[in-house]
Amino acid sequence: MKAWEMNVRRTVPYVPGEQPQAVNLVKLNTNENPYPPAPGVAKVLRETDADLLRRYPDPAAGALVRAIADFHGVAPEQVFVGVGSDDVLGMAFLTFFAGEKPILFPDITYSFYDVWADLFRIPYRRPALDENFRLRPEDYLQENGGIVIANPNAPTSIAEPLEVIERIAAGNPGSVVIVDEAYVDFGGQTALPLTAKYDNVLVVRTFSKSRSLAGLRIGYAIGCEALIRALQDIKYSYNSYTMNAVTIAAGCASVEDRAYFEETLAKVVATRETAEKKLRELGFTFPESSTNFLFATHETVPADYIFAELRRRQIYVRYFPKPRIDRFLRITVGTPEEMDRLCEALGEIISAYRPG
Amino acid sequence: MKAWEMNVRRTVPYVPGEQPQAVNLVKLNTNENPYPPAPGVAKVLRETDADLLRRYPDPAAGALVRAIADFHGVAPEQVFVGVGSDDVLGMAFLTFFAGEKPILFPDITYSFYDVWADLFRIPYRRPALDENFRLRPEDYLQENGGIVIANPNAPTSIAEPLEVIERIAAGNPGSVVIVDEAYVDFGGQTALPLTAKYDNVLVVRTFSKSRSLAGLRIGYAIGCEALIRALQDIKYSYNSYTMNAVTIAAGCASVEDRAYFEETLAKVVATRETAEKKLRELGFTFPESSTNFLFATHETVPADYIFAELRRRQIYVRYFPKPRIDRFLRITVGTPEEMDRLCEALGEIISAYRPG
Repeated sequence: MKAWEMNVRRTVPYVPGEQPQAVNLVKLNTNENPYPPAPGVAKVLRETDADLLRRYPDPAAGALVRAIADFHGVAPEQVFVGVGSDDVLGMAFLTFFAGEKPILFPDITYSFYDVWADLFRIPYRRPALDENFRLRPEDYLQENGGIVIANPNAPTSIAEPLEVIERIAAGNPGSVVIVDEAYVDFGGQTALPLTAKYDNVLVVRTFSKSRSLAGLRIGYAIGCEALIRALQDIKYSYNSYTMNAVTIAAGCASVEDRAYFEETLAKVVATRETAEKKLRELGFTFPESSTNFLFATHETVPADYIFAELRRRQIYVRYFPKPRIDRFLRITVGTPEEMDRLCEALGEIISAYRPG
Repeated sequence: MKAWEMNVRRTVPYVPGEQPQAVNLVKLNTNENPYPPAPGVAKVLRETDADLLRRYPDPAAGALVRAIADFHGVAPEQVFVGVGSDDVLGMAFLTFFAGEKPILFPDITYSFYDVWADLFRIPYRRPALDENFRLRPEDYLQENGGIVIANPNAPTSIAEPLEVIERIAAGNPGSVVIVDEAYVDFGGQTALPLTAKYDNVLVVRTFSKSRSLAGLRIGYAIGCEALIRALQDIKYSYNSYTMNAVTIAAGCASVEDRAYFEETLAKVVATRETAEKKLRELGFTFPESSTNFLFATHETVPADYIFAELRRRQIYVRYFPKPRIDRFLRITVGTPEEMDRLCEALGEIISAYRPG
């Protein structure tokens, strides 16, 4: 132990999904999009004048904020951007959950929430989802210092109807309710309309999934102007210039191409539906997915066995060895060809399995 | 007041220098480099395959970490990278200053330090620099929970000799001593050798000044492996993927071109020397600069007057209306042509000035 360690903050960090680098692998473990980003993104990269990089970027990322505001039909003052939705969510935890009362989020959800709470020393409680992994809204009507709901939820893929989110928002005027909509473009109902009606609802989105830009790091939040101002004050107290000049321009190009965005979404959703059918035939069950992944369990073969066997075949999916979800695999929807290779491998693995 | 505001963290954010957008302006207010980044950066932008952006970047930014480690002759395990040195410094405050005792930094220094301390509720004391803006090392031998020294300091431009930093490091084995070397490439002695000798010294650097990459957002820290591991644990507890794929590749291209780096530095230093001579002739005095800016005061004309008059002529410098430094202007070293235009304008302003 070093002498200075007494002053060090200790945490148990979030563990991101692996990023294996082999060539012929099928990577269905981090919910990336199998299609390239909008063609305008490539154009921005090709045409950016590197000389501009000697200047600081616009700290407000104004062009990107305006593009996102236009896309959603809200005012630019209602939009906050950050380095991926993790940056936006982390900043929102730091900004809005500074009270003494515990914040609330489900026992099964995005596994970064408790990491941020621990990092910023925010007390929290985790009401259990029901046996079908559904939210019990009444759990979120107890006293609290803030609420975070991923909708659709991860890793379950389940979307709750808007009424559930609204009941929670309406019942908690004294708390900010963060609705993490990382996957909402693939299904489910957005809570964006609630941001016009409730001053405590903050919707968080990402470019990493539906916009095929995980590598660029863009996330954003939409809420009433007072929420966005509070977030900005904390952002400017941490790092004035988070979005680099190339990212701002490339992000704009993505947002401005609505046709490509919708086309890509439709392809992913169609592949999901085909994959669901095939997986059912192989003996898998899963909740109805509103995301770009399936949360699948097999009737006889254990998830950790399938996970290891797929990995041996260079097919990567995600397995969480955690209570209540350790019988499930989270499988990203890839291209039709990738899903065919997955299903073929699953067929082999399942027919070769002998319970030990 | 909104009902949820009782749970909101309140801060007074850092105010970055203006980023005016007019065409014919002379921008000497944010210590940017007047020369473009290394040619390899433009090549990276032109040649990056946008399709790769659909994947998450390497969360460890391994290629960039290795390039920086090679450049400085340290192990990759001794290097931490972030979204500009502000991200690195903010993360270091959060990581290393979690004790109860006040941290120490000078009364006159980078004005983000107290903002981070307030944000993370870190108690602090600010020992006064002496009347020549020099550090009194004995001030940093009192009990503390951490120390931050910008060396060379901003906005004073003064570098303290390495012995001063070493005395502080040696006298505080129980505290992390952050040495913010944003400007060290332009002059002064680096504390990097101390990182091999003291396990409590963390040196922080940026690509924004000497590498002409303010627009790309890259900063880094070098220290012993234990310091870097502690920083990484906090980083992975906040945002796993901070450095985007383009930034990692472009940053590597910059670091790998040592000849261009040294050539650009030499040009800025030569221009600084010429500008010093001219400013002296105009009646300015300033400490000896070890940076890419001058901290200048005029014998008769007030700094705020000069600042406003320059601004009227589309020449931007930085003025801090703060105790002890409100007679000074911080003037970035631009191209020779920009400095000529500055000096010409200063000549006019000074000869037209009539004390009111």
